[in-house]
Amino acid sequence: MSEQHHPNPSEPLGDAPAHDPRGHGYIQDKDEYLKRLRRIEGQARGLQRMVEEEKYCIDILTQVSAMTRALQAVALGLLEDHMSHCVVDAARAGDDAATQAKVKEATDAIARFARS
Amino acid sequence: MSEQHHPNPSEPLGDAPAHDPRGHGYIQDKDEYLKRLRRIEGQARGLQRMVEEEKYCIDILTQVSAMTRALQAVALGLLEDHMSHCVVDAARAGDDAATQAKVKEATDAIARFARS
Amino acid sequence: MSEQHHPNPSEPLGDAPAHDPRGHGYIQDKDEYLKRLRRIEGQARGLQRMVEEEKYCIDILTQVSAMTRALQAVALGLLEDHMSHCVVDAARAGDDAATQAKVKEATDAIARFARS
Amino acid sequence: MSEQHHPNPSEPLGDAPAHDPRGHGYIQDKDEYLKRLRRIEGQARGLQRMVEEEKYCIDILTQVSAMTRALQAVALGLLEDHMSHCVVDAARAGDDAATQAKVKEATDAIARFARS
Repeated sequence: MSEQHHPNPSEPLGDAPAHDPRGHGYIQDKDEYLKRLRRIEGQARGLQRMVEEEKYCIDILTQVSAMTRALQAVALGLLEDHMSHCVVDAARAGDDAATQAKVKEATDAIARFARS
Repeated sequence: MSEQHHPNPSEPLGDAPAHDPRGHGYIQDKDEYLKRLRRIEGQARGLQRMVEEEKYCIDILTQVSAMTRALQAVALGLLEDHMSHCVVDAARAGDDAATQAKVKEATDAIARFARS
Repeated sequence: MSEQHHPNPSEPLGDAPAHDPRGHGYIQDKDEYLKRLRRIEGQARGLQRMVEEEKYCIDILTQVSAMTRALQAVALGLLEDHMSHCVVDAARAGDDAATQAKVKEATDAIARFARS
Repeated sequence: MSEQHHPNPSEPLGDAPAHDPRGHGYIQDKDEYLKRLRRIEGQARGLQRMVEEEKYCIDILTQVSAMTRALQAVALGLLEDHMSHCVVDAARAGDDAATQAKVKEATDAIARFARS
């Protein structure tokens, strides 16, 4: 796993440019992502209850699909954030190699996303 | 949601046939399903930590894909159980309408599965 | 590829049972499958024209998605036919090993379907 | 469908910038895309032959999956081209509204791609 985490999130952002290259794009929506992931965690617990109570397999499958869709929505949001921040920032900075690397990362993530 | 849950799981199974129509197929693997779902719940918590710590978006996406694959494996197991129990039991009982209804449920679930 | 093709399609079906084990389920919808596949072939040619004329990439992608959905609908139909004929016939014949083999084939096909 | 097709492909590109905003990214790989799409068209014809000859449904499904994967590879290539040309060119031109529009188009295409 990459070590590219935000080096010091508590650091004052004072003179940071509009698209702070130190951040990772999703920072402004952090609470929204956390809210969605907590809901997904709740869906995982709900599924355990359904299995415990031996609910009908098709009903459990319906809930698994709903949970998968919720996860895919998170993935799609992260992909959009990656494009509008990581890719766009590298392009604006005029760094061709970095831009192509960011595009490549996005493409690989989309391939994993479609196949998962 | 269907009302076809196991009517009374504590009821003695005494003379139940090999494929008890009251059960829902996955019952023998119940612990395995619960183990997998607890692991998935843990992945949802791990993702929240990654967002909290502002990890790199591509690394978070990799974990979202791993979690989606784990969920899809659960769905595939439930589909297999539905076919080998619900569909097969109805076919053996010679009930054509019930068999077609079970096949239809499986097809709809596969469509949701592929689209989610 | 399996050698389980229909041994002699021109053979009179005379006293064939409702679910002829020699056929492969989709036979009654053969014309419908052929019609859909010809339409899909036409979509592949339409895409070549769009690339030739250098249409906008997003418009080409929209057509690729439409074509993929058409293919997935064919796959879903074949899966339903496999379940309502191959799986159900084996279950009715009381052949447990054959039934489990057919269910396994369906599960593997669903896994490939979801991942493709 | 968008009217953003290349206005006049035979027009001399003379003073065109490195990433010609009039082109659509995939132009340099046009022959490669055409070759892949012709192969996909051939797969659609092969599937018609399999249905005509009443091949086993699971074998047909295996070919449908192979064809779907080939189509998804085309979609992934187009998405990568859209990002490395359309998105990146707009970002370099410093046009924020156009950049966000291109990112939005990519995100919508990825959503359709994952759901198809």
